[in-house]
Amino acid sequence: MTDLSTFFRPRGVAIVGASRDPDKLGHSLMKKLIQYNYRGQIYPINPKAEEVLGWKCYTSVTQAPDPLDLAVIIIPAPYVERVLVECIERKVSSIVIISGGFRETGPEGAKREQRLKEIIEANGVHVIGPNCVGLMDTHTPLNVTFLKDMPAPGEIGFLSHSGALCAAVINWARQAGVGFSRIVSLGNQVDVTQTDLLTTFVDDSNTRVITLYLEGVDDGPEFIEVARAMSLKRPILAIKAGTGEAGARAVSSHTGALAGQDAAYSAAFRRAGILRATTMEELFNWARALAWQPLPKGNRVGVLTNAGGLGVMAADAIEAAGLKLAELTEETKAFLRERTPPAASVENPVDVLGGSGSATYGLAMDALLRDPNVDVVCVMQAPADWFSVPSLAEVVGEIAGYARKPVLACMMGLEPMGEAAQVLNRRQIPNYTFPEQLGSTLAAMWARCQWLDAQAAGDQQPAEQITADTAAARAILEGKHGLLPPEDAGALMKLYGIAAPGAGLASTPGDAAKLADEIGYPVVLKIASPDIVHKIDVGGVVVGLEDADAVRAEAAAMIERARQAKPGAAIQGVHVQQMVKGKEIIVGVTRDPQFGPLVMVGSGGTAVELTKDVAFDLAPLARKEAAAMLDRTTAGPILGGYRGAPGSDRAAAEAVITRLAQLAIDLPQINEIEINPVIVRGAGEGALAVDVRVLLK
Amino acid sequence: MTDLSTFFRPRGVAIVGASRDPDKLGHSLMKKLIQYNYRGQIYPINPKAEEVLGWKCYTSVTQAPDPLDLAVIIIPAPYVERVLVECIERKVSSIVIISGGFRETGPEGAKREQRLKEIIEANGVHVIGPNCVGLMDTHTPLNVTFLKDMPAPGEIGFLSHSGALCAAVINWARQAGVGFSRIVSLGNQVDVTQTDLLTTFVDDSNTRVITLYLEGVDDGPEFIEVARAMSLKRPILAIKAGTGEAGARAVSSHTGALAGQDAAYSAAFRRAGILRATTMEELFNWARALAWQPLPKGNRVGVLTNAGGLGVMAADAIEAAGLKLAELTEETKAFLRERTPPAASVENPVDVLGGSGSATYGLAMDALLRDPNVDVVCVMQAPADWFSVPSLAEVVGEIAGYARKPVLACMMGLEPMGEAAQVLNRRQIPNYTFPEQLGSTLAAMWARCQWLDAQAAGDQQPAEQITADTAAARAILEGKHGLLPPEDAGALMKLYGIAAPGAGLASTPGDAAKLADEIGYPVVLKIASPDIVHKIDVGGVVVGLEDADAVRAEAAAMIERARQAKPGAAIQGVHVQQMVKGKEIIVGVTRDPQFGPLVMVGSGGTAVELTKDVAFDLAPLARKEAAAMLDRTTAGPILGGYRGAPGSDRAAAEAVITRLAQLAIDLPQINEIEINPVIVRGAGEGALAVDVRVLLK
Repeated sequence: MTDLSTFFRPRGVAIVGASRDPDKLGHSLMKKLIQYNYRGQIYPINPKAEEVLGWKCYTSVTQAPDPLDLAVIIIPAPYVERVLVECIERKVSSIVIISGGFRETGPEGAKREQRLKEIIEANGVHVIGPNCVGLMDTHTPLNVTFLKDMPAPGEIGFLSHSGALCAAVINWARQAGVGFSRIVSLGNQVDVTQTDLLTTFVDDSNTRVITLYLEGVDDGPEFIEVARAMSLKRPILAIKAGTGEAGARAVSSHTGALAGQDAAYSAAFRRAGILRATTMEELFNWARALAWQPLPKGNRVGVLTNAGGLGVMAADAIEAAGLKLAELTEETKAFLRERTPPAASVENPVDVLGGSGSATYGLAMDALLRDPNVDVVCVMQAPADWFSVPSLAEVVGEIAGYARKPVLACMMGLEPMGEAAQVLNRRQIPNYTFPEQLGSTLAAMWARCQWLDAQAAGDQQPAEQITADTAAARAILEGKHGLLPPEDAGALMKLYGIAAPGAGLASTPGDAAKLADEIGYPVVLKIASPDIVHKIDVGGVVVGLEDADAVRAEAAAMIERARQAKPGAAIQGVHVQQMVKGKEIIVGVTRDPQFGPLVMVGSGGTAVELTKDVAFDLAPLARKEAAAMLDRTTAGPILGGYRGAPGSDRAAAEAVITRLAQLAIDLPQINEIEINPVIVRGAGEGALAVDVRVLLK
Repeated sequence: MTDLSTFFRPRGVAIVGASRDPDKLGHSLMKKLIQYNYRGQIYPINPKAEEVLGWKCYTSVTQAPDPLDLAVIIIPAPYVERVLVECIERKVSSIVIISGGFRETGPEGAKREQRLKEIIEANGVHVIGPNCVGLMDTHTPLNVTFLKDMPAPGEIGFLSHSGALCAAVINWARQAGVGFSRIVSLGNQVDVTQTDLLTTFVDDSNTRVITLYLEGVDDGPEFIEVARAMSLKRPILAIKAGTGEAGARAVSSHTGALAGQDAAYSAAFRRAGILRATTMEELFNWARALAWQPLPKGNRVGVLTNAGGLGVMAADAIEAAGLKLAELTEETKAFLRERTPPAASVENPVDVLGGSGSATYGLAMDALLRDPNVDVVCVMQAPADWFSVPSLAEVVGEIAGYARKPVLACMMGLEPMGEAAQVLNRRQIPNYTFPEQLGSTLAAMWARCQWLDAQAAGDQQPAEQITADTAAARAILEGKHGLLPPEDAGALMKLYGIAAPGAGLASTPGDAAKLADEIGYPVVLKIASPDIVHKIDVGGVVVGLEDADAVRAEAAAMIERARQAKPGAAIQGVHVQQMVKGKEIIVGVTRDPQFGPLVMVGSGGTAVELTKDVAFDLAPLARKEAAAMLDRTTAGPILGGYRGAPGSDRAAAEAVITRLAQLAIDLPQINEIEINPVIVRGAGEGALAVDVRVLLK
């Protein structure tokens, strides 16, 4: 995808469908462009008018003179194709189609859209839309939407799959005093997608944070790759709509029951370093902090307040967010003790009490920011009559301005567009109405720190190289459908180096000892006879045999016992089975339509659907990624040796996970695989796939 | 506690500490009282002034004439005691002490507060405070606080342990256009507590919802009892601050590690029917809906929107909240099809498309409200230039007004104090900025419905009557400390009817068979010899014996095998142990300082601290409550027979829970008890306490 910045910095704009009728969208669009001070040329295209709002009309876009970089089309759907062709003739390569009447309206519209797609691809032009509300860049400034308002210039870019949400966000932003750099309504994405625009937004010097409202992406792997590269440069925050999974799905395994689109998106976002918000408010609370403040170097939070209750709430929010209250140095406490009232708290949260004003706040804030044990400072303030909030805002803003640590404010009850709020906005201090919002925002900042650190530490190692005899694997699957027979599933595991417990039939005590030597100890012996149903009753089960001598002796004794107990029974010998002790985990793979093989790992057992103690990631997987999956469930600490229990062979468990992921990539004819349980033995002893289900397409 | 309504409807108010100096709080207080149109008599008490703000001064409260119902004290702490005595002389029995300088400042202040407490109790007066910001009743109107503003009159009552938060909430409420009936800052609660005021608030006809900001309660059982009775009449919503448990606690059991103040409060709130909010915003989002709208009769939500994206977001929010999208009747769909544009969606969410105005909205909303499959309607609206939002607000308000089903709105981007917002407020339609807030509010409404239904169905059955020989139990514990020896713990369980697996030592094969008959089958035999460490190696373990003959034969064979394998070993006979198969659960009790015995139930195993698959409730417990605890964890479905497994003896599991709860009540010298695991056998087969830990004070 070539440069899309022309969409945001055109020297001239043609409005195809510009109208003199104030009730028409084509009129609104012209009006916004003028009203919001677009400084380039405007060419209304309307064969029936001389001029619109003072700008000379042209009969066709082909007639419009230079400079002309952007065409915006807002005419009935049947005429759009012709205008698109004219734009191409006129060598306008950036086109926004606002008109609806395409894919969203049914088969006929879909055909119409398909024809547009073919023309676009054949000619290498770029089209945003159709069926969108347009786009804006507050810095150019350029507003080619028919929306009521444009937000103030700011640092947040917003890309949306919903036009309605653009409108809602803009209204809210104006009331909240939040500025935006660019807003794009993506519509049907006949050509330009959210993935394409990510790069353009990152390249925009005015955009410091990118926010996304996604209803879905249809270029899964590319989206992840681009977003991951861009996340290194700018924070990307997203809301994914349609998280629910209404309606029943056919469920054929635990993995199938637990995996879903939402798990796939979460995994994709985590890989790409995208911070996932669950509410619009959260999205923009995070965006303001990430746009305006530096990232913290650690997770130790200093809290400054003038009311104990706010300190308690802040402490709760910080703990809930997974950060912690900083332990202040003795120097800081001594400094504070001399400068605050006797009843003040110089322990974190620092409470300067209700009578203190901006001067005391300033001194205390400076001390907190200089304390080496503090990574981020939250300034809380309870409203009071005698308190000059604008003065506090100035002081907080000034001190934060020369600190290299992030500062967040919770000055409660500010009027959104009042003096103090404006001071904070100008000083780029994000302010929050209630303390809980601080916690959520700190958690997002800290998550970004950790992601960036992991990237810098090379955590994104390439996926593990696993070479298996894929031809043999394909041969096993050849011509099969539905559930693969267990022996084939076992053979498939073997090809991918996933071990299973050893087992076999021995006809003599000597053979049993030999077999046990091959399988490894301990083993269990069971009498092999079609005539003996209740083996235990005849002493036909012996467990925990530790060496060949014991196996030989017990096998002989067992056969003898069985003969005496059931004279005349046909005795084939003994079954020798490896006794597998260890911790159980579950590993499975399903196939996501957008993101491909989706791997699930969890603590084992049939109750996994109830406990939902599982983690997801996308194949292929690096060893570290498999390890991280284990650690997102209780399987991690359990395998690690929880509460004094000996540790298990985590490396072997990780290998099963990466190998199963590779298998799913190599063999797309497999719909689902599940191993439940994988028994992970003691350190160095390996992991064994006890029950394997493979479901083909 | 007698009637506290005089605090809110006094005929005359004395302000002790009223000042002519505008910088003094005693001046602010007088000013607010006058400014907010208090219509009763005002008596400034100040020996050094003739009048304050036009009201005649008195040298002492004893001098103030009738009517005088309320005294507000705002003078330095050392003088408060004398004034309190004067108030009592003057027969003023409702007193607010705003002054700080008591318990919150250290030991000397605490002594001062203790003296106040003694005087109050001796004289039967009622005191709110000290160290508070006062109270207001917007309907009287009465404002005896020194806060900047008073909110508009409304239906929400607010009780707060934090004065700062009162101020913040009021500022926020004014901006959001949310009204309040009463606000009380409780301060140090030397006398009047949140529990006392709950009743007074419920008795107030202007208060339809009560909101609480709690930092803690110190009358746990009374608080639950009063709040439960009041919840039947009015919704009570609460935030509990200090949810975090900073600092390490000594942990002596899984229960100890998992239980905490927060679990106790959650249990208390659930018992009392209090809806627990996690953020202030959520608290008042819920409060508006519960104050203004009827409760739904079911959980089927109809969504009406003019933009597909908002419908998707609403559907997500509804599913996340545990409600569901209503299936519209064919009649409704046919009605809608005739009245909406061809491309509109007449399936729920109903999308009337961007071009539709308030008339179409009105028709569609009426149809949704009349559909028998719809219990609640959410009206969403994306902002658009050509759309008259005030008109939509009028239509929505009018239709909702004659419906008996709740209506919530999400008209996005409304100016908080703009015309449309005012129409909605007047019509008592709660409006939310973003769809996610709808979901959270619906969940709260639905939770209240379910709680009320459970009460109506008599779910609050009395706790199970469990009579045990408490004298014998006390005798077991007599003189003991720390961890109780296992045999004593076993004896204690027996006294409370909690069974353990049978076990014993038999010296001969005949005794073994007799013992097995007593214990019940199947049993396991193990060789009993101090000289044989690895029992399995000598065939010294046999499992699954089903009858006396098998036990006799195997015991003899085992003793013989052991003799041959270890000649000269001292053989005492065989251990006979009941083989217990079943599902494992964990049941434990700790002691909460406010709420008493806190019972924990969870799925079993040592990993319970990792999975946190546990539920808490307070003792004593009714059977239904024990059952509900199981159902809040995966133990519920697992015992019920999950995925085709046979069901377990749930009744026996419930009995263990209620019995252990009673034991904890009867024996306060026990700090913690934990049974891990309780093995729950098949239906009708009982539940057995396998490992019991009892920790004494």
